Amino acid sequence: MKIIHYSDAEPKHFDTNGAKGVTGRVVIGKADGADNFCMRFFELSEGGYTPEHSHGWEHEIVIHSGKGEVLCEGVWEPVARGHVVFIPGNEAHQLRNVGEEPLVFACLIPSEAPEL
Amino acid sequence: MKIIHYSDAEPKHFDTNGAKGVTGRVVIGKADGADNFCMRFFELSEGGYTPEHSHGWEHEIVIHSGKGEVLCEGVWEPVARGHVVFIPGNEAHQLRNVGEEPLVFACLIPSEAPEL
Repeated sequence: MKIIHYSDAEPKHFDTNGAKGVTGRVVIGKADGADNFCMRFFELSEGGYTPEHSHGWEHEIVIHSGKGEVLCEGVWEPVARGHVVFIPGNEAHQLRNVGEEPLVFACLIPSEAPEL
Repeated sequence: MKIIHYSDAEPKHFDTNGAKGVTGRVVIGKADGADNFCMRFFELSEGGYTPEHSHGWEHEIVIHSGKGEVLCEGVWEPVARGHVVFIPGNEAHQLRNVGEEPLVFACLIPSEAPEL
């Protein structure tokens, strides 16, 4: 069994390729023996966003804290603490922080996807 | 894409078979097209607990709110908001609420496991 606080996992920062103010962490992955799916945590700083993109694997997301929006078929949909988001494979998506606090969310992917 | 608040998913209550004060919800599952892994949310009321058990599939857990403990090899380990827990397959486990507020967590499982 592994128990950690997400903030104790090693951070990786992204400020290129269409991303701004994004910190990602693999919190449960193959190195832990999780062979079927992987949990990452992301923090988007104030004004931060992920790139608009699509890929063959799905996302299952839990909004942990903050206020954000998810781009869904051309419309920005509001999300906040306690919302969950399912993004099927090959569907374009993007997340952005629209609050003053960091937007923090867990994002899970199947094992065939790159962990981070 | 599916966006919902976890509390808007249909609840199922468990107060038997070693469980007390447990409410479970499938928030992302096969009915949504999630064929690889499934997200459930659980709320444990004050004094509530899940059964001590083990099974062949793993859990990936995010503690969303509240204060709890996870039974890990005979020791109760404290968890709170922002902790993540990886429970490999076939490892005995149990969660309990040790706070005054509900203990709320997301718990993900691979597709071969029963969703709830």
